[in-house]
Amino acid sequence: MTQAVRHDSMRARNLGVVLSEIRRSGPVTRAALAEITGLTKTTVSKMVGDLIAAGMVTETGTLRDGERGRPGTTLALSGERVAALGLEINVDYLSVCVVDLTLAVRLRCAQAVDNRACTPAETLTHLRKLIHKAVDEARAAGLTIAGSTLAVPGPVDGGLLHSAPNLGWRDVRVGDLMDGLTGEVGERPPGEFPGKFPVEVENEANLAALGELWFGSAPDDFLHVSGEIGIGAGLVVGGTLFRGTRGLAGELGHVIVTPDGPACRCGGRGCLEQYAGQEALLRAAGLDLPASLPAPGADLPGSGPGAGPGAGSGVPPALAELVRRLQEGDASALRACERAGNALGIALTSAINLLDPGTIVLGGVFAPLFPWISGPARDTMAGRLGAMRRAVPELAVSRLGADAATLGAAGRVLQRVVADPGRHMATGRRDPGPR
Amino acid sequence: MTQAVRHDSMRARNLGVVLSEIRRSGPVTRAALAEITGLTKTTVSKMVGDLIAAGMVTETGTLRDGERGRPGTTLALSGERVAALGLEINVDYLSVCVVDLTLAVRLRCAQAVDNRACTPAETLTHLRKLIHKAVDEARAAGLTIAGSTLAVPGPVDGGLLHSAPNLGWRDVRVGDLMDGLTGEVGERPPGEFPGKFPVEVENEANLAALGELWFGSAPDDFLHVSGEIGIGAGLVVGGTLFRGTRGLAGELGHVIVTPDGPACRCGGRGCLEQYAGQEALLRAAGLDLPASLPAPGADLPGSGPGAGPGAGSGVPPALAELVRRLQEGDASALRACERAGNALGIALTSAINLLDPGTIVLGGVFAPLFPWISGPARDTMAGRLGAMRRAVPELAVSRLGADAATLGAAGRVLQRVVADPGRHMATGRRDPGPR
Repeated sequence: MTQAVRHDSMRARNLGVVLSEIRRSGPVTRAALAEITGLTKTTVSKMVGDLIAAGMVTETGTLRDGERGRPGTTLALSGERVAALGLEINVDYLSVCVVDLTLAVRLRCAQAVDNRACTPAETLTHLRKLIHKAVDEARAAGLTIAGSTLAVPGPVDGGLLHSAPNLGWRDVRVGDLMDGLTGEVGERPPGEFPGKFPVEVENEANLAALGELWFGSAPDDFLHVSGEIGIGAGLVVGGTLFRGTRGLAGELGHVIVTPDGPACRCGGRGCLEQYAGQEALLRAAGLDLPASLPAPGADLPGSGPGAGPGAGSGVPPALAELVRRLQEGDASALRACERAGNALGIALTSAINLLDPGTIVLGGVFAPLFPWISGPARDTMAGRLGAMRRAVPELAVSRLGADAATLGAAGRVLQRVVADPGRHMATGRRDPGPR
Repeated sequence: MTQAVRHDSMRARNLGVVLSEIRRSGPVTRAALAEITGLTKTTVSKMVGDLIAAGMVTETGTLRDGERGRPGTTLALSGERVAALGLEINVDYLSVCVVDLTLAVRLRCAQAVDNRACTPAETLTHLRKLIHKAVDEARAAGLTIAGSTLAVPGPVDGGLLHSAPNLGWRDVRVGDLMDGLTGEVGERPPGEFPGKFPVEVENEANLAALGELWFGSAPDDFLHVSGEIGIGAGLVVGGTLFRGTRGLAGELGHVIVTPDGPACRCGGRGCLEQYAGQEALLRAAGLDLPASLPAPGADLPGSGPGAGPGAGSGVPPALAELVRRLQEGDASALRACERAGNALGIALTSAINLLDPGTIVLGGVFAPLFPWISGPARDTMAGRLGAMRRAVPELAVSRLGADAATLGAAGRVLQRVVADPGRHMATGRRDPGPR
């Protein structure tokens, strides 16, 4: 019995080693895989056979490896079967994407919803409808859903959303509220999750940083700043997310800019969000707020399936108007961005002193506003850090903008599939049937 | 040849496994070691024999393991041979300690030196004299020095001290300036470092956090705050020091409390050091500064060899005077601590939001001032963090005070000896001679 368990766990580990190596160095031959991994050719061939049957790997061509022997067939990850759902609840929108194992974005939709006006249950009802549609479309394209991660705008610890001050939510077990989903998503194709619809919950800023790592152009060492109505940050060091002691690190939005500044929804005063959060920015620029939020249910411009990464899930109308005014040189819009950039520079100075990040990547609403915000932020940082540090970290713009969290959420599921594909094959291998 | 290298590296690894296990579970028998590590009894006996010959392990008694067989001899780490030097350059003192492999402090001395009035070369000349004395005394006690780490009050990257604003030092290759030491420390006993006197340089705040981890009573998750003339911090998560991307994390002293506050030596304004650093505190309490610094060469009260951890390397006279006035209820002293505590609370609020530490341990000068500083700091943190976080991290007082960095510096060398004892035995095994 012990032997059997050992054999199973060794097989599981080896499957992960082979699939990870195919992702890292594909297209690659079975012979090369055996050489790199140290596994025997027989083991590699058996593993590859199982991974092909599970739709995770595909043969892509042939390659003559030097002068030796006959040419080998090359293997790469396959995007035809396994996919993951990335989900996001933010203050003024919901967003869903489907990403396949090759990290190709197969579907993306966002919906403007003022979640501040909703109870958690109402918001999750809206979200479940979006998920339902996404799952249906994914299945119609022949995909099976390996799992999902839900990004929420606040610190999460063990599935519990402690507090999302911008939503007015506190101590919400978001995962439990998703349980109704299992019944809704209909008959599951063989190979899909066996029990409850699997939803893990994680902080939006952490997932945005992982999205930037896997889908963006960021190097392995960076601080990703998510500017939304709230502001969060995720630190990646050596390709690994820094989560702190309980996963609550990176709350840049509540770093103190001025101790006696305006009151913040978190209960503090003078937090960065009160100067550089989306609402503070729009208010300072004289853009009317309530009108800027479309009615629940209205699709955002630019949303819909099939858009490639970088296109953005859509820019809220008030933000688009702010960008227009900035382009025209509107004085109060420029002043608002300068004030926000200065405050961002103050908070980032404290963050650089504490976290020692590599590059700083500005995402979310800071991506479209980068040309106007980055200058003042950079000047503030240079003035305060330049004498002590040899080099002040560079500010870069995120290519993903507001999509980073949803992509990171899906990517997290796929990372786990690649690390342990057996878990998604055990009950998941389709009956190949007659061919 | 490849085989030989493999054999050597396996031996090195197994020596580390055996010694680490003796440290973790000693007193322990050879039979128990074989069972825990999975190595054969023959291998364990051979390794233990080598470790005893190298003076790293000693037999402590006998233990009957249940009813089976004859009683086994128990083994534990030995403090009789291998030791490390912990060194510190701070703004107003130098400090040296000798710690043996069992983490017993064998020697400690501190000297008041106003290093702001010295060039780096002058400071290191003072330090080399202290080291010389410490090495002589350690050798006289039969100890061999496995290496040393030097704590400096500023960010270090690859042996280069970028900037120690409170010393006025910038881009100093401190390690290189210690090269003269090799000639000074005299004839080396067999088993000591073979080449140059080994000095690694590391940030004081990082080493103080490690000191708290290994010598203090802190749990595995904490932020250690070193209050000196400068203020640094070191974050430990799951027993591991978080260093950031280039080892420059934890500069709590330059977290911004008030953006337009007083100018700081770092080039910024309104940094925490300007409110809660030792000088700012003494100035606010009306204590004359220049008189508070003893002349170079004068020993600090409480310094000298043989003091156990927790005794403190001595409290500077002006600080002792501040504590006296606080105990007497002096109004300006109390106001100064309240102001410093509030500022510390503001900076820690930002740090908690970014780093998500476990407990917060206040060390350095904050240890003797804890009764007066911790209350205002705690109130400020609770008011700003309480609504968003389920629990605000607790404030605890360091048992080590100003000794934490020097102890951590020595502990770091000993950690490496235990992980790879072979490196310290290859040229280090003493000729046992006739017995």
